[in-house]
Amino acid sequence: MKTIHLLFISVLSIHLSYTQDIKPNEVKNIMKKVADWQIMHINDAYSNDKPHHALHWTNAALYVGMAKWAEMADNDTYYNWLKGIGDQNNWQLHERKYHADDHAVGRMYAALYGKYNQKEMLEPTIEQFNYILHHPANTKLNWATPYHQDRWNWCDALFMSPPVWADLYSITGEQKYLDFMLDEYKATTEFLFDTEEHLYYRDERFKGKLDKGTKIFWGRGNGWVFAGLADILSNLKPETSEYSYFLDIYKKMADRLIELQTPEGHWAMSLLGKEFYPTPETSGSSFFIYGLAWGINRGILNGPKFKKAVQSGWKAMTGYVNEDGMLGYVQPIGAAPGNASANKTEVYGTGAFLSAGSEIYKMVGAN
Amino acid sequence: MKTIHLLFISVLSIHLSYTQDIKPNEVKNIMKKVADWQIMHINDAYSNDKPHHALHWTNAALYVGMAKWAEMADNDTYYNWLKGIGDQNNWQLHERKYHADDHAVGRMYAALYGKYNQKEMLEPTIEQFNYILHHPANTKLNWATPYHQDRWNWCDALFMSPPVWADLYSITGEQKYLDFMLDEYKATTEFLFDTEEHLYYRDERFKGKLDKGTKIFWGRGNGWVFAGLADILSNLKPETSEYSYFLDIYKKMADRLIELQTPEGHWAMSLLGKEFYPTPETSGSSFFIYGLAWGINRGILNGPKFKKAVQSGWKAMTGYVNEDGMLGYVQPIGAAPGNASANKTEVYGTGAFLSAGSEIYKMVGAN
Amino acid sequence: MKTIHLLFISVLSIHLSYTQDIKPNEVKNIMKKVADWQIMHINDAYSNDKPHHALHWTNAALYVGMAKWAEMADNDTYYNWLKGIGDQNNWQLHERKYHADDHAVGRMYAALYGKYNQKEMLEPTIEQFNYILHHPANTKLNWATPYHQDRWNWCDALFMSPPVWADLYSITGEQKYLDFMLDEYKATTEFLFDTEEHLYYRDERFKGKLDKGTKIFWGRGNGWVFAGLADILSNLKPETSEYSYFLDIYKKMADRLIELQTPEGHWAMSLLGKEFYPTPETSGSSFFIYGLAWGINRGILNGPKFKKAVQSGWKAMTGYVNEDGMLGYVQPIGAAPGNASANKTEVYGTGAFLSAGSEIYKMVGAN
Repeated sequence: MKTIHLLFISVLSIHLSYTQDIKPNEVKNIMKKVADWQIMHINDAYSNDKPHHALHWTNAALYVGMAKWAEMADNDTYYNWLKGIGDQNNWQLHERKYHADDHAVGRMYAALYGKYNQKEMLEPTIEQFNYILHHPANTKLNWATPYHQDRWNWCDALFMSPPVWADLYSITGEQKYLDFMLDEYKATTEFLFDTEEHLYYRDERFKGKLDKGTKIFWGRGNGWVFAGLADILSNLKPETSEYSYFLDIYKKMADRLIELQTPEGHWAMSLLGKEFYPTPETSGSSFFIYGLAWGINRGILNGPKFKKAVQSGWKAMTGYVNEDGMLGYVQPIGAAPGNASANKTEVYGTGAFLSAGSEIYKMVGAN
Repeated sequence: MKTIHLLFISVLSIHLSYTQDIKPNEVKNIMKKVADWQIMHINDAYSNDKPHHALHWTNAALYVGMAKWAEMADNDTYYNWLKGIGDQNNWQLHERKYHADDHAVGRMYAALYGKYNQKEMLEPTIEQFNYILHHPANTKLNWATPYHQDRWNWCDALFMSPPVWADLYSITGEQKYLDFMLDEYKATTEFLFDTEEHLYYRDERFKGKLDKGTKIFWGRGNGWVFAGLADILSNLKPETSEYSYFLDIYKKMADRLIELQTPEGHWAMSLLGKEFYPTPETSGSSFFIYGLAWGINRGILNGPKFKKAVQSGWKAMTGYVNEDGMLGYVQPIGAAPGNASANKTEVYGTGAFLSAGSEIYKMVGAN
Repeated sequence: MKTIHLLFISVLSIHLSYTQDIKPNEVKNIMKKVADWQIMHINDAYSNDKPHHALHWTNAALYVGMAKWAEMADNDTYYNWLKGIGDQNNWQLHERKYHADDHAVGRMYAALYGKYNQKEMLEPTIEQFNYILHHPANTKLNWATPYHQDRWNWCDALFMSPPVWADLYSITGEQKYLDFMLDEYKATTEFLFDTEEHLYYRDERFKGKLDKGTKIFWGRGNGWVFAGLADILSNLKPETSEYSYFLDIYKKMADRLIELQTPEGHWAMSLLGKEFYPTPETSGSSFFIYGLAWGINRGILNGPKFKKAVQSGWKAMTGYVNEDGMLGYVQPIGAAPGNASANKTEVYGTGAFLSAGSEIYKMVGAN
């Protein structure tokens, strides 16, 4: 009986990879499979030789996607799993007060506050962010200057921290959270956004550098930014100037990303160097698919080219989910294009995939 | 397709509950289902309003069973899950130096040492137990005397700590661990073992007390002892006097437990008061099944009555596993007979069930 | 022999209080007596029911005076005593990163660095102040606003923190320490300095308030400022604009303070309300004497009125030193005019007295 069961799953996978139409139910099935696999393997050692700390940014990025999946799931299993993590850690952010990576888990706390409406879930985050407002880092964005990462001087940070500020703004209604975030976001964008390519450098070290003749725009790095933009915009009212500011960047990136997708459906680890980095990568790609589908679903991105990109992207991604539910081809922790392999995964990759799935599900007509 | 799949699972459950012969494959399937459900729900709030700490005795008892299941499973998923917990907690025992409850996680560390042979997995436990040898608690076993729980003055403790000492003895070959444990075990037994009933009182408070006319021998309390005895004996050489000591208690309990099983297959929360506590309870019962099957498999318990008891017990237990894989009727944290319900579970219940399954699997001919 | 000795000390005290001329040797003798008494009683409970923490501002103010005395003393006893405190505390500032009170011990560290030139004595202070430069408090000076004491919104703070910044500026030559301090000092002065009375309010709560018809300018509060100004100016080059800024305030205060001294030689706890607060107070008064003598010694304050004020002040102070060497009439910890008594002392009072003595000693012709 077990053999028959596995066979059925395989058939399902093949089915997903090769047909043209994406069925809502299939999206949900593969999301569940991937989510379940990940929870069963939460204590695996991935990029490091130990499992990640429960509040580490890697897991925080997983939780972002898991919270989106929890909203779709048939029961509260996934909400309970997330809530337990918050409870066990007293709803604290991770160790460093200013470092964006250590803010990222606040995104899950905000999502769970949205579900449970329990004050204690957000109190430590509010207290810490108020502290930062009262003691803002007065540091340079240049790499390796003192306390440089106490501001957002690497593009991944734009996923880790600004959406939490946007969440607090939208939950509390207090403008100060948005004002601070916008000022800082602008500083980062001025520093790392390439106005010709409409992509972000990972950090100062990559500006002006070439890799086999191409500028280095790291896939996942831009994935962090693009997915973060969608999450920020979701918290803002369309008639505001802040919305316009973020929408402008979002659209520029969306247009550029469409051009850079590979024929196979994924995006290369070096966005402008796909011929040098032919290996698929699923974390950055999933973030792009998430962001693009989000824009389609909100009527921001129109026309068949966007939909086509998202469809072929999602099909590519699901093709990298193995029989057990493990998403392969996730590039390990890094800061630049590198390696990925079919049997390598990481929790943030799963998070990106679940985020993508949640918008794909809406896009294909469910809801 | 999904519907068909769920249907299949349901049919399997029904099948397991009603047939006479237990098939090895069915044992493995239901163990996997229960183990997977538990991992997916490890962050649920059970007896408390927060999930248990990863090193809390509740989880430690789960890990004991999970390690037995990990040995049977088709891949290393479960070992990885356990190893990650050790890694994240630096292979430390829980908070209190002397309290048996806080030693219990050492049983998993010893099991993983058996698999991985990595020194760091046992070093903190060895260091702590050496400290105890050099600073033995010189306290009374009477309840509520100063530092009373720094020795084993409640019967649950006999599961939590002595098997870890036996593990260390058998791994290091150092007699001192066994000597200390034996002396302490004898003291507890002299204090809590009823030589007429061949059962353990939970602690001093229950000695000489009656509940509806019966002496109070708590089901799970004796379950802790009985399962612990099997684990201690597994570490000893049969020709030794220590083995004889533990075997004698084990056999007396086994003979008595057989007489007390309910016709439905479980044991009551109050072993002598099944008419007053008709509700099934699965944690204590699973420990009894584990201990009995262990004795059968080692040729210690002979004759059909033991096998019959174990079979009907296991069938009862599997009948309380719901569709999703949750083991119901686990009495919440307590110290005496109480309540249990079909939709209440606890991690140590799952642990007991997996321990039971591991011996049932051997008993029914697999290996 | 002992009786004779005590007799001699008493005679000496009487002598000091009533003769016109202050002899350098007498200054030194009484300073030693007071310093020794204080060290012998460092673990007394003063304003609180426990001795102060070694890094608490109360002791920090003592160390400031003790370091001045250490420089005059015949051997290294007092330097060793201070150095031991730094060593035992790893030359760390006290607990709170931003609170001026917890910076005050840095003044002793800087003084000892001046003597021993050992890097580790200042490294933690430099690291912490660099951190503050990179994360400046962005808070209001209004009382009881969030994190309000993370900037200098009470006048005592001007003794506790700015001189440490000035020390670092002068030791490292780095302008950033002076720039930050000057900006913050200006903000505080704008907020708390009364431009008619040329005195500082203790904090916002006292602005616009009257006590028996007089504005409330707390004696010791202004003592903190005035002594602090002398210490800041000592670190600056006279030709700089920063020097001029502080000198201007210093001179305005000096002129005003001369007018407010009581005929008995001390200053009242409420500077404008000496008729309502007739009790002498020795901590604020000693700080004024210190600051005035410092100005005389540097040729900043000229004319007999300043010298006369300082002489009668010092005589008053020494009259409150008891037979054993305890300085009486030190107002306990507070924030406003209050009570003092002959047999009440406090470590910061001793510190102020030793600071005063160190400049008196120079003034009367030694050096």
